[in-house]
Amino acid sequence: MPNPSLPNDQRPVDATIGGIGEIAALRRILPRLSSGDAALLGPGDDAAVVAASDGRFVVTTDLLVHGPDFRLAWSTPFELGWKAAATNLTDVAAMGARPTALVVAIAAPPASSPALLEGIADGLREALAALAPGAGVVGGDLSASDVLTIAVTAFGDLEGRAPVLRSGARAGDVIAHAGTRGDAARGLALLFAEATDAAGEPDANLAAALRERRPDLVRAQLAPSPPVRAGVIAATAGATSMLDVSDGLARDARRVAEASGVDLDFSSEALGGDPDVVRWALAGGEDHGMLATFPAGTEIPAPFERIGRVVAGGGRILLDGREAGADGWDPYSGWDGRAG
Amino acid sequence: MPNPSLPNDQRPVDATIGGIGEIAALRRILPRLSSGDAALLGPGDDAAVVAASDGRFVVTTDLLVHGPDFRLAWSTPFELGWKAAATNLTDVAAMGARPTALVVAIAAPPASSPALLEGIADGLREALAALAPGAGVVGGDLSASDVLTIAVTAFGDLEGRAPVLRSGARAGDVIAHAGTRGDAARGLALLFAEATDAAGEPDANLAAALRERRPDLVRAQLAPSPPVRAGVIAATAGATSMLDVSDGLARDARRVAEASGVDLDFSSEALGGDPDVVRWALAGGEDHGMLATFPAGTEIPAPFERIGRVVAGGGRILLDGREAGADGWDPYSGWDGRAG
Repeated sequence: MPNPSLPNDQRPVDATIGGIGEIAALRRILPRLSSGDAALLGPGDDAAVVAASDGRFVVTTDLLVHGPDFRLAWSTPFELGWKAAATNLTDVAAMGARPTALVVAIAAPPASSPALLEGIADGLREALAALAPGAGVVGGDLSASDVLTIAVTAFGDLEGRAPVLRSGARAGDVIAHAGTRGDAARGLALLFAEATDAAGEPDANLAAALRERRPDLVRAQLAPSPPVRAGVIAATAGATSMLDVSDGLARDARRVAEASGVDLDFSSEALGGDPDVVRWALAGGEDHGMLATFPAGTEIPAPFERIGRVVAGGGRILLDGREAGADGWDPYSGWDGRAG
Repeated sequence: MPNPSLPNDQRPVDATIGGIGEIAALRRILPRLSSGDAALLGPGDDAAVVAASDGRFVVTTDLLVHGPDFRLAWSTPFELGWKAAATNLTDVAAMGARPTALVVAIAAPPASSPALLEGIADGLREALAALAPGAGVVGGDLSASDVLTIAVTAFGDLEGRAPVLRSGARAGDVIAHAGTRGDAARGLALLFAEATDAAGEPDANLAAALRERRPDLVRAQLAPSPPVRAGVIAATAGATSMLDVSDGLARDARRVAEASGVDLDFSSEALGGDPDVVRWALAGGEDHGMLATFPAGTEIPAPFERIGRVVAGGGRILLDGREAGADGWDPYSGWDGRAG
């Protein structure tokens, strides 16, 4: 209950998460979250207990760091929570698993408003509801840091299926993709070009104006809606390999090519035809689409579309039969620690 | 292969993790780690697959942040990895589960030496080998941040047993404890008193000298060896409640008292008798001992020792029958962001 008549040094302690402390902060967050259908024991004890119906569980973890991974001048807390959930759910889905649960640890500056944590929680909840209904947040941790950091670990259930690996592509297979290609990278490029101030720092007002002009591309970068359900669909349809396209189609496809000992030959026409569109599709990261291969003759299930074929070779990416060069994203190189 | 004849601006790129990049950094870390006996699929794909023998898994997560949680002037990278593993393993054990696996995400300044990551990996490996043989690291993530941050998520297998909760203590039960009481907090108090410089900043040379004088207390703080195996031992012996003592015996015991609707009455004689020893035992955090309750008449299994009894009441902590006051640790309050 803020009281505007109080001088600054008597501001109510609930104005910051440092003032209210960890227990009170958790009390604000937990009611906003569900622990989901797989939670046998949710938050509140030393650890949670989660169902693993076939005696195995799929697990992936990811750190989102203010500066290299997001900027508060561009992203709302809701969008941070949404993206943290979405990007981890796709890694689970890319194994052919149904996402069941997350644990989320957040380190925030103590001077932050509790609304920061509440917004992140709301984004987590809504992304789970939209992308992986039935999955929930079964546990977490709150800590203090000068750099806002979100650590998400996501779990999935293979429901008796074999995991779909990167190493299963065979010459003759069809290459298929679900999701956007290049939109997230185009959104990020626009944010850097049109939503930074004269000093190159992320600017909230310029970002708001850009959202008006290109809501699709900004949303693809800040709050993507990747095709999480496509993971189980591909596994059920017999996908021979699959991965989540986080670093760009060329770089991630090369991982499949190397792990499988084949070349992946993309069709520029299937990728959009226009050279600029093809370039963004191959080089642009963070779309979190699903790249899968299927045996020739498979009826490719929606939302996948055919974008090329697997040929004999050894770790190369081809475009219309010729070797393609394209780059991706490394969290350490080119990083200057600038925080928005 | 560093070449000392090169000028500074041609220093080899392998001098920093920013220079070598994420892939090369992972190549240095992964050979130092085992994915353990429960890993059905280890690192290298979008996600790992871990066995969950009874169709459930236990999960806990924790963030360790440079500044509030550790200081590089005091802790070696090996100790950071060790403590990150140890503190999460105890949360799994406190449910009565056998720890099976970890995932570990690290955000490090790009200017750090690769030896930082290697040391953390070595500490993780050795703590797992010492405290939870057979458990391994099944996956992880590397990211960049100005603030070194380690996120650990740990998993365990209940092997068909019911989880041991905080809410099961009943009047008449015996209170038992395994592990050190107050040593970690005494070590931290010594580090602040004797290993900080005139400006109050952590000092590596003073810490080295303190290590010579009080190796036991410094080790209890920087690289604790909590009784992880005691978790399964207590569960098998019929423990009615259990938790990991991370915030001090008084604060954590109060959680059991509140969840169970009872009072916990400690014996000052069993806690050491000397008032100073009792005070450290009740108030000192980070020992990560196991606090458990057992039905009266249970033969208390080693390494547990009897320290009190559960009495009718409602959420209070007593010492020799009189209400006790003691404080714990909150990550946000009193934090000033100072990094060693």
